[in-house]
Amino acid sequence: MTSIDLNSDLGESFGPWRMGDDAAMLQIVTSANIACGFHAGDPAGILSVLREAANRGVAVGAHVGYRDLAGFGRRNMDPSSDELVGDTIYQIGALQGLARAAGTSVRYVKPHGALYNTIANDARQAADVIAAIKAINPDLVFLALAGAPVVKQARDAGLTVVSEAFADRAYNADGSLVSRRLPGSVIHDPGIIAERMLKMVREKRVTTIDGIDIPLEAESICVHGDTPAAVGIAHTLRETFEKRGIELKSFAGVSNG
Amino acid sequence: MTSIDLNSDLGESFGPWRMGDDAAMLQIVTSANIACGFHAGDPAGILSVLREAANRGVAVGAHVGYRDLAGFGRRNMDPSSDELVGDTIYQIGALQGLARAAGTSVRYVKPHGALYNTIANDARQAADVIAAIKAINPDLVFLALAGAPVVKQARDAGLTVVSEAFADRAYNADGSLVSRRLPGSVIHDPGIIAERMLKMVREKRVTTIDGIDIPLEAESICVHGDTPAAVGIAHTLRETFEKRGIELKSFAGVSNG
Amino acid sequence: MTSIDLNSDLGESFGPWRMGDDAAMLQIVTSANIACGFHAGDPAGILSVLREAANRGVAVGAHVGYRDLAGFGRRNMDPSSDELVGDTIYQIGALQGLARAAGTSVRYVKPHGALYNTIANDARQAADVIAAIKAINPDLVFLALAGAPVVKQARDAGLTVVSEAFADRAYNADGSLVSRRLPGSVIHDPGIIAERMLKMVREKRVTTIDGIDIPLEAESICVHGDTPAAVGIAHTLRETFEKRGIELKSFAGVSNG
Amino acid sequence: MTSIDLNSDLGESFGPWRMGDDAAMLQIVTSANIACGFHAGDPAGILSVLREAANRGVAVGAHVGYRDLAGFGRRNMDPSSDELVGDTIYQIGALQGLARAAGTSVRYVKPHGALYNTIANDARQAADVIAAIKAINPDLVFLALAGAPVVKQARDAGLTVVSEAFADRAYNADGSLVSRRLPGSVIHDPGIIAERMLKMVREKRVTTIDGIDIPLEAESICVHGDTPAAVGIAHTLRETFEKRGIELKSFAGVSNG
Repeated sequence: MTSIDLNSDLGESFGPWRMGDDAAMLQIVTSANIACGFHAGDPAGILSVLREAANRGVAVGAHVGYRDLAGFGRRNMDPSSDELVGDTIYQIGALQGLARAAGTSVRYVKPHGALYNTIANDARQAADVIAAIKAINPDLVFLALAGAPVVKQARDAGLTVVSEAFADRAYNADGSLVSRRLPGSVIHDPGIIAERMLKMVREKRVTTIDGIDIPLEAESICVHGDTPAAVGIAHTLRETFEKRGIELKSFAGVSNG
Repeated sequence: MTSIDLNSDLGESFGPWRMGDDAAMLQIVTSANIACGFHAGDPAGILSVLREAANRGVAVGAHVGYRDLAGFGRRNMDPSSDELVGDTIYQIGALQGLARAAGTSVRYVKPHGALYNTIANDARQAADVIAAIKAINPDLVFLALAGAPVVKQARDAGLTVVSEAFADRAYNADGSLVSRRLPGSVIHDPGIIAERMLKMVREKRVTTIDGIDIPLEAESICVHGDTPAAVGIAHTLRETFEKRGIELKSFAGVSNG
Repeated sequence: MTSIDLNSDLGESFGPWRMGDDAAMLQIVTSANIACGFHAGDPAGILSVLREAANRGVAVGAHVGYRDLAGFGRRNMDPSSDELVGDTIYQIGALQGLARAAGTSVRYVKPHGALYNTIANDARQAADVIAAIKAINPDLVFLALAGAPVVKQARDAGLTVVSEAFADRAYNADGSLVSRRLPGSVIHDPGIIAERMLKMVREKRVTTIDGIDIPLEAESICVHGDTPAAVGIAHTLRETFEKRGIELKSFAGVSNG
Repeated sequence: MTSIDLNSDLGESFGPWRMGDDAAMLQIVTSANIACGFHAGDPAGILSVLREAANRGVAVGAHVGYRDLAGFGRRNMDPSSDELVGDTIYQIGALQGLARAAGTSVRYVKPHGALYNTIANDARQAADVIAAIKAINPDLVFLALAGAPVVKQARDAGLTVVSEAFADRAYNADGSLVSRRLPGSVIHDPGIIAERMLKMVREKRVTTIDGIDIPLEAESICVHGDTPAAVGIAHTLRETFEKRGIELKSFAGVSNG
């Protein structure tokens, strides 16, 4: 039976500020990328989300980011290798500690925001993140952008890599994501999104923004939960997969539901 | 053979700012209380100190503090229990991650500054710190002020507690430390300090500021390393113990040198 | 004609996180307590709110708080006098700069959260805040809890003080607010709130939680805008005042509308 | 009589961490670039330095930086225009407030670290900083790298610009600074540094790393004070100028000594 993983960014509230509907998303996804305090997330809030994830059987990953709370980790930065290695280990370790307290454990690492985008192509920063993962626990899975150079780099370094597709994003002919600044970069129709992802799972192909089909192989799909509409899309996606006989299952072997 | 542990606060640099002579202190102490990023310490700097501690065979503890970098964790705060439990687990976990990367492991927890002073007597905040330690790893030793109510509270909760004396501080008749605001609260003469601590180790007694002897039983002695004079005192203390046949040994069973 | 000022806390978003409906509240209140970055508020967001306040003719005040973003300035702290004086001047100055850029100016200072509560009775911290205001601009009005000791202390120090009442809070017989931990401390019915405040404005009296009337004289009323219900209460209050011939006017002489 | 300004970065301590010898440098320089809290500097420490600067008659400038305390503002970042404009105004305003309390005033703005280097050539971020200065006070002088494109950009925008040379840095043939990563980029000999700067002031020329002379016109010279050696260099420079009849005078018209 074909299966797929759905992942989403959770635990991104901070102090008095709420973000996203974590409770709703934990009923939909099979993998939760949990903020680690550098771009978002405070320990008490993270612990609470981890407990819910543990209860729902959702696999937990460390959503590590740049140390940039005001910019939500979305601003490019150029930390030194010592800084990036240290910051990445620190965040993973902190989440591991909270996960243990919540009765679960960190299975994977997914960089966030500007760090995610940067390491997709920047071999130096990618090497730092890879070195950090290996230093704290080489068994952690690395969740990365399908088709990006970092996938091979991480595999060559000995990490297990899982590739992900983006449910609501348009793709260029070379397999990269259409920049958010361009029209048509984000797809809003839940039905279209579901059909695209169904095709990706079954045929390992996606239709680009130019209307041609290209190969796209991903073992996980990233969905958003920051607006009610986003939660709705994620819900439709899950429902569609279930109806069409595609099992929703974490790549880490944990099962939600 | 009688033995004693020497502990000191290390890893308290932050970003471009240096504090203390960590390299010198790692040649003297048997236990290193390492800052965890909330009151001091950045991940790259912490990682570097952890590597040196691992090389020297110095036992490593999590020096957890309030989230107050500007105040160096020395200002009283009243976090909620959820916040304090979360913050404590987060810091311990982060240090565990960095310790693993450095080839060592966290053996104990010692709260820092205002948190240390508060939990000595505040049962609610003490309970939060104790709960945090139990949640992440109940085998972690809790290093606390000899004679303080928190010692019994932590033992009753099932933790292994190690008591510490302060090498350069005067004691009141009830076993508490003389407030730093009072004259005579801090002892500066290395020879006097060494004799006091020798007596404490051999006779389990200390002479109070009023000149009477009271019982003081501690398995660890806290020394400072923030000034060259402080490093000198610590060095004298170590030398005195070695000459008088008292073994310097971490309570965690790790040996330095 | 009788007049009253309505004030509310605004500009409390931070980075990607939204808080409150600032646009709605700026149509209701006559004075805006703007976060200054220590407990909430980032410069770009603050600047945007200041521009809207300038457009609507709403008077602007510096909502200074403890340096505690994760705790939203709601946790008690004991900064030294040097720290509290410096932090307060810094925040007021930053807001003055942004206000100038937005075409308005800071008219008053209202401490936030734990700092507000602490200085109501703590003469040392109150003196620090008062000294800070005098050092940066002694013409700034000080907005404080009606009946609290700090009111006299600030007046004796030469500041102009405006007292405020809380629209939705129950009062004790001694004029203090009923603790939020007690049942009945917060009043939810918009009609009851409006009648209470109408009485306060007209008769300078309020009915306590025990059912007796006590004197309460305030030139400003604090309303909240952090939930749709809170915005609704504020709206009802404004409407009630307007219908009953009470003018809504900033104590700083700025007029909204 | 020929005159020149000496400027240096001050107020860069933070909380418990010291940096530089501010007291010594305030006896040497005529302009003090004061940290504003984003890359370094806490309000109480800044206030203390401002008081000393006021006492010594040293002109004060806002040393604005990226919001990156852990990286000391030395890491490249790409804030949005809204963020950079807001952050810059906020920092200038905060320093203005503290300066007022200290009995002095902010005369100029000098960006710090990565922001300084970025805006030298990046017209977008440069425009943001320029817009911020104009919004808070168009009379503030802008202190920038001699020969960099930002000098013309700021003048065209209507700002008064003062150019600066770096006392201890080697220059390329195109007038840019030799990268710190290259050998010979930093000059350490106080005598050589003094002769180079003397030539720059008298002849408006500097010898490049390749041994040829190029024009270099600057009304201010940046000196460092972060090490005893750096303070020594600054002292030698001041002494040399005084002996050779060159007046040390702030470009802002304030006189030290």
